[in-house]
Amino acid sequence: MRILGIDPGSRFTGYGVLETSGSKNRLLDQGRISCRPSDPLVTRLTVLARELRQVVEAWHPDVAVLETPFQGVNPRSLIVLAQARGAILLALGDLELAVAEYTPAQIKMAVTGSGRAEKLQVSRMVGMLLTVDPKTLTADAADALAAALCHGAHYPLTQTKASQGHTRY
Amino acid sequence: MRILGIDPGSRFTGYGVLETSGSKNRLLDQGRISCRPSDPLVTRLTVLARELRQVVEAWHPDVAVLETPFQGVNPRSLIVLAQARGAILLALGDLELAVAEYTPAQIKMAVTGSGRAEKLQVSRMVGMLLTVDPKTLTADAADALAAALCHGAHYPLTQTKASQGHTRY
Repeated sequence: MRILGIDPGSRFTGYGVLETSGSKNRLLDQGRISCRPSDPLVTRLTVLARELRQVVEAWHPDVAVLETPFQGVNPRSLIVLAQARGAILLALGDLELAVAEYTPAQIKMAVTGSGRAEKLQVSRMVGMLLTVDPKTLTADAADALAAALCHGAHYPLTQTKASQGHTRY
Repeated sequence: MRILGIDPGSRFTGYGVLETSGSKNRLLDQGRISCRPSDPLVTRLTVLARELRQVVEAWHPDVAVLETPFQGVNPRSLIVLAQARGAILLALGDLELAVAEYTPAQIKMAVTGSGRAEKLQVSRMVGMLLTVDPKTLTADAADALAAALCHGAHYPLTQTKASQGHTRY
């Protein structure tokens, strides 16, 4: 199974593609999409969606995985982040790609064994599980890959359909 | 000039298309797009974007107008609303439609003369300015048309490009 992990951001959106079979994971691609803060939001979302579609077209993942939108950040950041997330979901939906979502705690738990792990610990474990030097991953890509690894870990256990990972609001 | 006003919502998204020349405004279309709350968010956003694209293709507006995302609603609603808004902006951006944004106060001011007008007053004035019975407008469509009327009122005064209506976050 090929999994695309996405970590949406207002400035940078991280992504990572991995292939998983059983407990084996292989990193296929990772990177981040940058948006110019000086551009109007509609331009930034259009650029973000275009580059994300290129990643999907290049790798044909079976499922895309995102973190559930977290609260706790300030309302202004949350509004931008949620709009980026909405654009990403539309881009994925238009491509008829299955989307799964996990909470930050589920992702940390799946990757480090603790739902409260620090960012550095998550990034180290992502590197270890994918046998890559964590220093070669941007923070955004590491988070995206953590989400992808979480789905890889949950999927064989629960035998659920990818669509069951959806959260509803 | 043809103006498409959009009032994004998590359940219903109102829209209205009008034609403006000087102080004359003519209603061309209005309605609302419904999303099933039981559907996953990605499905709802995909449906929303598809129906919105149909409105754009049917009427070929010169510009789309939205309210700036308001704070003050609870974070949970805000997250859904902002994600719907992000999907809408992407759908409009993909169609290369210019997007203008105004604050709720600017819209109320343009339509009623008061930035603090009540919803009912806004809806009455939308009816009056477009010579339609306000009872025939859904609340969502009335808000969408108010945004469109606001752009129609601002545009000839300021001689700005539509894109200058953008707010950045």
